[in-house]
Amino acid sequence: MSRLLYHLWLSPFSRKVRVLLTEKGLPFELKVEKTWERRTEFLAMNPAGDVPVLVEPDGTTLTDSQVIAEWIDETQPAPSLIGPDPLQRAETRRLVQWFDGKFNIEVTENLVGERVMKRFLKLGEPHAPAIRAGLANIHYHLDYIGWLAERRTWLAGDDFSLADITAASHLSCIDYIGDVPWEQHDAAKDWYARVKSRPSFRAILADHIPGLSPPSHYADLDF
Amino acid sequence: MSRLLYHLWLSPFSRKVRVLLTEKGLPFELKVEKTWERRTEFLAMNPAGDVPVLVEPDGTTLTDSQVIAEWIDETQPAPSLIGPDPLQRAETRRLVQWFDGKFNIEVTENLVGERVMKRFLKLGEPHAPAIRAGLANIHYHLDYIGWLAERRTWLAGDDFSLADITAASHLSCIDYIGDVPWEQHDAAKDWYARVKSRPSFRAILADHIPGLSPPSHYADLDF
Repeated sequence: MSRLLYHLWLSPFSRKVRVLLTEKGLPFELKVEKTWERRTEFLAMNPAGDVPVLVEPDGTTLTDSQVIAEWIDETQPAPSLIGPDPLQRAETRRLVQWFDGKFNIEVTENLVGERVMKRFLKLGEPHAPAIRAGLANIHYHLDYIGWLAERRTWLAGDDFSLADITAASHLSCIDYIGDVPWEQHDAAKDWYARVKSRPSFRAILADHIPGLSPPSHYADLDF
Repeated sequence: MSRLLYHLWLSPFSRKVRVLLTEKGLPFELKVEKTWERRTEFLAMNPAGDVPVLVEPDGTTLTDSQVIAEWIDETQPAPSLIGPDPLQRAETRRLVQWFDGKFNIEVTENLVGERVMKRFLKLGEPHAPAIRAGLANIHYHLDYIGWLAERRTWLAGDDFSLADITAASHLSCIDYIGDVPWEQHDAAKDWYARVKSRPSFRAILADHIPGLSPPSHYADLDF
């Protein structure tokens, strides 16, 4: 039995685990889970009903992107993508939580959530004030990414880490629908170009959702 | 310099760290941070602007309750409150995320958020449909706690863990405003009675916010 990841194409949490597994050199298969259908067998694996869900080759089932990330870091320690010591690990986790928590609520949910997921989840029409909020909020987050990237090699410090993976996973979903104002944020754009050029990001850039094409710059390494 | 925790009285995330530090036998001082005032010095410590923030005796500053919990578990491993092996740790973290994520959005924010925090944060009047949603949602979460507690000694398994601390931290905030329907959920109530009787929970039960008294059963171990 091979490793299996239940996911959705524009779920940043699923993308985070896809990139992490690839950075760790762990092969896996992908299976789309239409979470809005609330399949009984899927809810038995994950009562929270969301993706990602990882089924390890021995059948061990794990849910929640950060639970999965900590599990992989503990069971497959090299290369460490959280960090070598408690202080570095705290900084990586702080930024992971920044993007999975604050950025997700202030930006991703307002843009990808309103424009795309709401349709799939049959939650009604996109809410224009939410989209406007997302388009406004993304600027200060891109400023923060730029601020970090100008002071550090990667977002959490000297090494590429789960912080970069998490930030890039959210941004790649938003970039897929053309909502990232790269032209106004050079430092963030330079950092994202470096993430895009990593082999672990290739599969993300090759994503192509039927009926929803990305803009031409989405997969372009020199965007 | 002693260990200092910036907190708010009805912040479940702050309570989680208070109980965790006490379970670990680590002394600390509490300082209320009125996060809605957005103090410059506080934002310099934590750009996210929320509590808890922990300042260690050597000045190391940590933010986000789960980042702090992982830091404490790594720097002060005994007794482990996440678990002895990766699989148990994944289950503890899954439940921590359940309560800090799902329960928080579906219940805590709708009840404590609407009835109390909205006033402090000057976000307007409580939203009646949100309160109704919180009062409806809490039932299935109490059922889930009861379901776990009937099958395991503690929520995540044989040992008292961060999962119990996290669930009880949220419930204690809601219990402070009298919104937990204990009488309809015996198994969850029995579990919470066991948490309440732990020495680490004494300070939580002694909380008394000026102008907002808890109901008489709040601190009662035999409620």
